[in-house]
Amino acid sequence: MSSKDQNLFSKILSVCKARGFLFPSSEIYGGLNSCWDYGPLGVQLKNNLKKQWWDNMTKRSDVTGLDSSIFMHPKVWEASGHLEGFTDPLSDCKDCKHRFRLDKDTKACPQCGSKNITKSRNFNLMFKSFMGPVEEESSVVYLRPETAQGIYVNFLNVQQSMRYIIPFGIAQIGKAFRNEITPSHSVFRAREFEQMEMQFFTSEQGSEKWFEYWRSERRQQLLSLGLKETELHFKTHSKEELAHYAKKAEDIEFDFPWGRRELEGLHNRGAFDLSRHQQFSGKKLQYFCPEQNKSYLPYVIETSIGADRLFLAVLCSAYTEETVKNETRKLLKLKSHIAPVQIAVLPLSKKPALTSLCEKLYSDLQKNWFAEYDASGSIGKRYRRQDEIGTPFCATIDFETCEDNKLTVRERDSMRQERIPIESLNAFLKDNLS
Amino acid sequence: MSSKDQNLFSKILSVCKARGFLFPSSEIYGGLNSCWDYGPLGVQLKNNLKKQWWDNMTKRSDVTGLDSSIFMHPKVWEASGHLEGFTDPLSDCKDCKHRFRLDKDTKACPQCGSKNITKSRNFNLMFKSFMGPVEEESSVVYLRPETAQGIYVNFLNVQQSMRYIIPFGIAQIGKAFRNEITPSHSVFRAREFEQMEMQFFTSEQGSEKWFEYWRSERRQQLLSLGLKETELHFKTHSKEELAHYAKKAEDIEFDFPWGRRELEGLHNRGAFDLSRHQQFSGKKLQYFCPEQNKSYLPYVIETSIGADRLFLAVLCSAYTEETVKNETRKLLKLKSHIAPVQIAVLPLSKKPALTSLCEKLYSDLQKNWFAEYDASGSIGKRYRRQDEIGTPFCATIDFETCEDNKLTVRERDSMRQERIPIESLNAFLKDNLS
Repeated sequence: MSSKDQNLFSKILSVCKARGFLFPSSEIYGGLNSCWDYGPLGVQLKNNLKKQWWDNMTKRSDVTGLDSSIFMHPKVWEASGHLEGFTDPLSDCKDCKHRFRLDKDTKACPQCGSKNITKSRNFNLMFKSFMGPVEEESSVVYLRPETAQGIYVNFLNVQQSMRYIIPFGIAQIGKAFRNEITPSHSVFRAREFEQMEMQFFTSEQGSEKWFEYWRSERRQQLLSLGLKETELHFKTHSKEELAHYAKKAEDIEFDFPWGRRELEGLHNRGAFDLSRHQQFSGKKLQYFCPEQNKSYLPYVIETSIGADRLFLAVLCSAYTEETVKNETRKLLKLKSHIAPVQIAVLPLSKKPALTSLCEKLYSDLQKNWFAEYDASGSIGKRYRRQDEIGTPFCATIDFETCEDNKLTVRERDSMRQERIPIESLNAFLKDNLS
Repeated sequence: MSSKDQNLFSKILSVCKARGFLFPSSEIYGGLNSCWDYGPLGVQLKNNLKKQWWDNMTKRSDVTGLDSSIFMHPKVWEASGHLEGFTDPLSDCKDCKHRFRLDKDTKACPQCGSKNITKSRNFNLMFKSFMGPVEEESSVVYLRPETAQGIYVNFLNVQQSMRYIIPFGIAQIGKAFRNEITPSHSVFRAREFEQMEMQFFTSEQGSEKWFEYWRSERRQQLLSLGLKETELHFKTHSKEELAHYAKKAEDIEFDFPWGRRELEGLHNRGAFDLSRHQQFSGKKLQYFCPEQNKSYLPYVIETSIGADRLFLAVLCSAYTEETVKNETRKLLKLKSHIAPVQIAVLPLSKKPALTSLCEKLYSDLQKNWFAEYDASGSIGKRYRRQDEIGTPFCATIDFETCEDNKLTVRERDSMRQERIPIESLNAFLKDNLS
């Protein structure tokens, strides 16, 4: 990352902290490495992104939802291959005792520079714990490193209880955990994170068509959140990069301030996962197709995105600095349907007549929109705050409002102000917030 | 629990499994004790309950949201008292080696009956794991046993970034984990569960008033979900039952089929939590009150409910059996605003003209409601399924529909049927689903 871009990301993180989007976890205790708390505006923005994804996925007749538990039977991770293969190579420095990840170009200890380092050994990235009152091998459980396995093991439960006919998909949002050696860039690579994954079950014949369908669908959805065409890049895995079982894989990459990084993955996983769970559980996971009167293991098309990465991508894409009257104006150009605050009510004085009018207005607005009421500080400072948190519209109420029943609506990006009757504000927002 | 009630709960759980509300976690591997997966209808019902709670809490000017991480700094659990005091007494049987919870009336091993048992020792109920590449004491982390501490440690972060004036509250929904020795009754007492907690910060003087306010508010909200007055019981803790720091505590209990059990807790926690975190972190957590021009540690009024318990209470309260034409009709009398499916579209034949009409209708309905499209099986079976999953209205489309543009709306509880024009269905639902 160039120093300029490093600077840009620092500025975004500092707005996040100051305005209540992201705080370091347990900050008063010095923080907990790689864990983050979403503040009031952060949780609202993240919830909006999650709801958008959930509705896009489940408000259709061929995809449904699931919420499987974080703890799963340890055999699941044997079958999935995580127990054996989900590892990083670690090495120890014999001089300073530092432990680090051995990448192909690491020649010396990154802490003291010594070349006296051990051969690498594989370190599993799953968090381990013990369930029940006895700490022994038989009670070991893992925090799931991905949500997808909860979908595979429930494939027949869902298909049968909902009487689905292939093709159909199962969508899930939930926490996952990876004991990353080198977490980085705030919530981009954290040890605790949230995934949004959808597994679409199809016949082998249909799998290529559905891969293309979901690729185009996901692209559209990312653009609808405000990410720009020029920031998104599709990278197809070459034959050498593909996992041994994968038929096809494509990354959707985003231009973060520190470089182009993976945001979402699309995979044609074939029948690998279901066949492994069938083998390890000894339970048939075949789907019976009534039309063909035969049973088979379906292929799986997966779309997998990190909610936290998407949150960061949306913030990075929206963050803007402008010079206005020789001062820097920071603003988040968030699409209005995902903004954590959509309309702010700003009274210009604390006179009782104005206050009761504003409170009534605020309480009406809350029924339809994410509204905020802010009565303290100069109006200039309040506008700056709303710009920084990405509020598309502010409604300012002044002394004249009591006379003419009008208020001033200010638009975030253009800063244009317009005076409209109070009673038409809701209609104005319906036209302008979509 | 009487055998009749035991039977009732079994029947509810069996509807949950068959209809896609709840599956045992990792079921194909024999299940994972005390962990559960929410199926398509379960996750939708639970999401509706969570959204209702979240909106009730955060769509007001004096409460905001937070989403803190599951992993927290270990010092948090020292300060909160969990490391020392969040324990169950465990005993070992010297004969059969079974380990069990020693309650005051346990005299012998519950497995083999031997009286040759060890003195009890305290077993901490927090799940332990290791963060980073080295498994040693310095890297121990715990899965949070409650979400509340994430709110306390962020008290000043939230207050300052949002410029709140006391009184105000912080609400949070999230997973918590307790290594229960005796999990029971499905998701009622599970090792992985989801909490909805709100901490309201007030002056000491205001704390009694706000306790009463939130008590009444929470009662109203539970009733609005369909829980009946006769099923809810408020139990004030006596002075002997109160935790040493607590000023007041009240349980809201619900009549589950196996007995009256805690559903929600209301607590006046005084300044205990903030003072402990101030002491253990060495950071000032006092609030500066501009009106009084002085700093103080606020009191906390807490409301704490388990989302999974609420889910179960709502299902138990809604589950009904009736005799209709000598047959048992099972139905969930869910309030329509929380039902996982609000309107089902049921075509009476698969003729192309009907199908395209139904699909158009279904896709229109999905914009406003949770809609389902079900074309397979006899209409009687389809009605029974919709009754069992609590769908308030079914819209049936038959051959006459093509002639007269009308459909039949069937109401779940009364089974009354009414024929209305297709284009008035949306207005009908607006009037009848609230």
